[in-house]
Amino acid sequence: MKFSVMMILLKKALKHAEVMRFSTYTFRKSTIYALSSGHGKCGVAVIRVTGPKASNAVQAIAGFSKLPEPRFAHLRNFRNVHNGDIIDKGLVIWFPGPKSFTGEDSCEFQVHGSLAVVNGILNSLSLIPSFRIAEAGEFTRRAYFNGKLDLTEVEGLADLLNAETEIQRKQAFLQSQGFLSKLYLEWKNDLSKELAHIEASIDFEETENLDSNKDESIKNISRIKQQIETHLLNGRKGEILRHGVKTVILGKPNVGKSSLFNLLCGRPAAIVTSTSGTTRDVLEVRLDISGYPLILVDTAGLAKHSSDPIELEGMKRAVEQLDNADLIIVVMDASDYSSWKINNKYLTFKDYLKCYMKNLELESYFFDCSERRSKPTIFVMNKSDLYSVETENVVSISCKTEKGFDNFLSTIGVELNKICGEPTKEHPCMNKTRHRQHLEDCLSEQNIFIEKYKASDMDVVILAEHLRRALRHLGKLVGSTSTEDLLDIIFSEFCIGK
Amino acid sequence: MKFSVMMILLKKALKHAEVMRFSTYTFRKSTIYALSSGHGKCGVAVIRVTGPKASNAVQAIAGFSKLPEPRFAHLRNFRNVHNGDIIDKGLVIWFPGPKSFTGEDSCEFQVHGSLAVVNGILNSLSLIPSFRIAEAGEFTRRAYFNGKLDLTEVEGLADLLNAETEIQRKQAFLQSQGFLSKLYLEWKNDLSKELAHIEASIDFEETENLDSNKDESIKNISRIKQQIETHLLNGRKGEILRHGVKTVILGKPNVGKSSLFNLLCGRPAAIVTSTSGTTRDVLEVRLDISGYPLILVDTAGLAKHSSDPIELEGMKRAVEQLDNADLIIVVMDASDYSSWKINNKYLTFKDYLKCYMKNLELESYFFDCSERRSKPTIFVMNKSDLYSVETENVVSISCKTEKGFDNFLSTIGVELNKICGEPTKEHPCMNKTRHRQHLEDCLSEQNIFIEKYKASDMDVVILAEHLRRALRHLGKLVGSTSTEDLLDIIFSEFCIGK
Repeated sequence: MKFSVMMILLKKALKHAEVMRFSTYTFRKSTIYALSSGHGKCGVAVIRVTGPKASNAVQAIAGFSKLPEPRFAHLRNFRNVHNGDIIDKGLVIWFPGPKSFTGEDSCEFQVHGSLAVVNGILNSLSLIPSFRIAEAGEFTRRAYFNGKLDLTEVEGLADLLNAETEIQRKQAFLQSQGFLSKLYLEWKNDLSKELAHIEASIDFEETENLDSNKDESIKNISRIKQQIETHLLNGRKGEILRHGVKTVILGKPNVGKSSLFNLLCGRPAAIVTSTSGTTRDVLEVRLDISGYPLILVDTAGLAKHSSDPIELEGMKRAVEQLDNADLIIVVMDASDYSSWKINNKYLTFKDYLKCYMKNLELESYFFDCSERRSKPTIFVMNKSDLYSVETENVVSISCKTEKGFDNFLSTIGVELNKICGEPTKEHPCMNKTRHRQHLEDCLSEQNIFIEKYKASDMDVVILAEHLRRALRHLGKLVGSTSTEDLLDIIFSEFCIGK
Repeated sequence: MKFSVMMILLKKALKHAEVMRFSTYTFRKSTIYALSSGHGKCGVAVIRVTGPKASNAVQAIAGFSKLPEPRFAHLRNFRNVHNGDIIDKGLVIWFPGPKSFTGEDSCEFQVHGSLAVVNGILNSLSLIPSFRIAEAGEFTRRAYFNGKLDLTEVEGLADLLNAETEIQRKQAFLQSQGFLSKLYLEWKNDLSKELAHIEASIDFEETENLDSNKDESIKNISRIKQQIETHLLNGRKGEILRHGVKTVILGKPNVGKSSLFNLLCGRPAAIVTSTSGTTRDVLEVRLDISGYPLILVDTAGLAKHSSDPIELEGMKRAVEQLDNADLIIVVMDASDYSSWKINNKYLTFKDYLKCYMKNLELESYFFDCSERRSKPTIFVMNKSDLYSVETENVVSISCKTEKGFDNFLSTIGVELNKICGEPTKEHPCMNKTRHRQHLEDCLSEQNIFIEKYKASDMDVVILAEHLRRALRHLGKLVGSTSTEDLLDIIFSEFCIGK
């Protein structure tokens, strides 16, 4: 038997094993329920039920003798299934599978949002045979197993539930709606076609035909490779957007770093005094600016000639923050700039900045041309109420009168947009290490394939296997070949009730 | 013109003024929206909209060109009305008035429960003309003004949202469903009939006819009076149930009061050591026992001959707690009881208790027969693992081994049931000072009426006015004659979104 035929048989066996795993989950599952809306006293609470016996909940709790009209909000008394006591009056909606979120029979109870009412309904549900409380993410897990969502969509949904700002929501929503999967599946589809050509030529031993298609094949695969590379490059933006843009405020002591920090926070998060060296610790807050998530970091002022060990430690930590920063805000003092004159002429801002950075012992960070150091930076000249400074590339502001603050905010907005981009349907952003890993592995398999194919120094059967591996990595991204362990990690990011 | 006719005209004028007030509210109202489900990250969030333009929300956000089928859960994309961006995909339900909670056109959006998604939808709603965010309780206020709920039902709903235990929920649910209103309206109806008889006789100057009905009328009104009195007496139970049963643990030092307290809490809320006098402050926790709300209070041990000023202050506070207690738990030490022998014979428990209470200087609290002092009390003999004590009316327990704890719990349950009762449809419980005030005022008007009517020493027109006042107090209970101020107080108890 030919090697390639053996491989095809092996693949079929693997596929069969996978279907078995899916089925196992299906057969052992019970009907689950959970509070899906937020905790705490509120106007309305939503309790959801899904699973093969969900209809029992509709009948036992809401007292329907036969199943009600699907997807219709019925106002009913909800009863304790044990003693028939009315627990509450509310809305019940029946969602028969497969047209439900999980793909299974489901129903939803909307009740008054008090501790006693929610507990009353949950207790009552627990009394129905084969019902149990849901685990975290179990509703979504069932949607995944029933083919309602693929793995990147599941990840998008988890991000959507965690989204704190508008652009984070946008990125997560696009992913949850399958736009990222669509991209991966297109690549997978295109690669599969190339693989099919090669496999066909193996089966029929048409090595001549194979050679004639070689250039075309290499061209196509290179194109896909190029797209993945661009996607990975943009993905850095998506990852920053997902985690938040780490923004470090930096400058000499007493130039108003903490005042600026507090102004951005909208509250006195940092202690501000006229004494230099007030801030010693590294303070961090999460902010939403123009829809982007900002992790704002206030640091100790950098004074060249301090000998106080606490201040020195503060400065060390301030400089360390630069390594992980995505954006730097350098704060200067307009009065300081005004006093720097040579021959009664102001220094150019660029010259001043060089002196300033030298003072901070950070010249290399801002004037070293190497890639690693060129981080996006905003230069702020504070105390504009006392001294007027008009130069290019500098934001003039008075933290005291708040003059220039709106302009400063929009400058940050522009930088954030450059750093994170804005995901679109056509260009959904990758934002997870898992994706980066698989895409990089996929790329390296493609690289080997192209290199060896060009040089014609590898058996075609083995060559095809590299392409198959590349495909498998794309497959893992959308979840057609994923392990239980991976699923556990992904679904544990959800709260109970989703 | 006769006095009574003038009064009738005046009443009509008042009624007209009231209708005007209702109408004013109706006309000035805008369309309101709010997050109705709980805050915080969760699977699903419910955003509700109500008001004359609610249909605009369905069309603008969910993109329906014509209004969808009422009460049907439609899966739709929800868009930002400003730029058409998709915010989320979720369920929308359209509830046309008057068959909605508020009686007005309403709709509900079910979205993913993240900060960014909820804010996205709320922002989008704010962009629709004449839409504004709801005030606390404004949905319910509209339901009230549209005649969907009366005032006691509104109060019941507020209690239902606050209910923490099963029996609190039951009481609140019955009130929210109008069972208390039903009772008040029956009384109002019965009293109105009596008033009608008297008014008729005034109009037609049938004083003879009036006299012939006198006995019957007095009998009927006395019956209503009796019912209200019983209701007020039971109402004390409802008030305790609403606020929680204040339960004070009391005893000598080091008998295990704090151990018992912790055992009931299910966690080490109080510090327990073998040193007597460990507890000095008054500790308080809220518990749910058998569905009743218990406010459990741990106190300092009462030692007769202490001179430590802190201990003395602690003991003073412990005794002060008795004044507001609804239930007292007296803890004793089995080893102490075992050592109290006279002529080698145990004291009867009653004699021991007298000695014990004398030691605590609290004889008057437990052996004074006056009404004020006879509070429900459970006697607990701790340390049963060391000494076995079997006497009537005493719960034997070991806080160390937890032996006897279940028995102790059910003893508390029985006492709680006696103290709070269990409200039923037939006997819904009154639980608010407002109700008590109006019912007491109503009673005193009836008392004057009966007294003067019996003695025949008052003009019938003035006599009738007393009955009218009694009726007005019942009217205020269900809210047909309430002031804006009162409404503000009642509705401020709600959260936003209800």
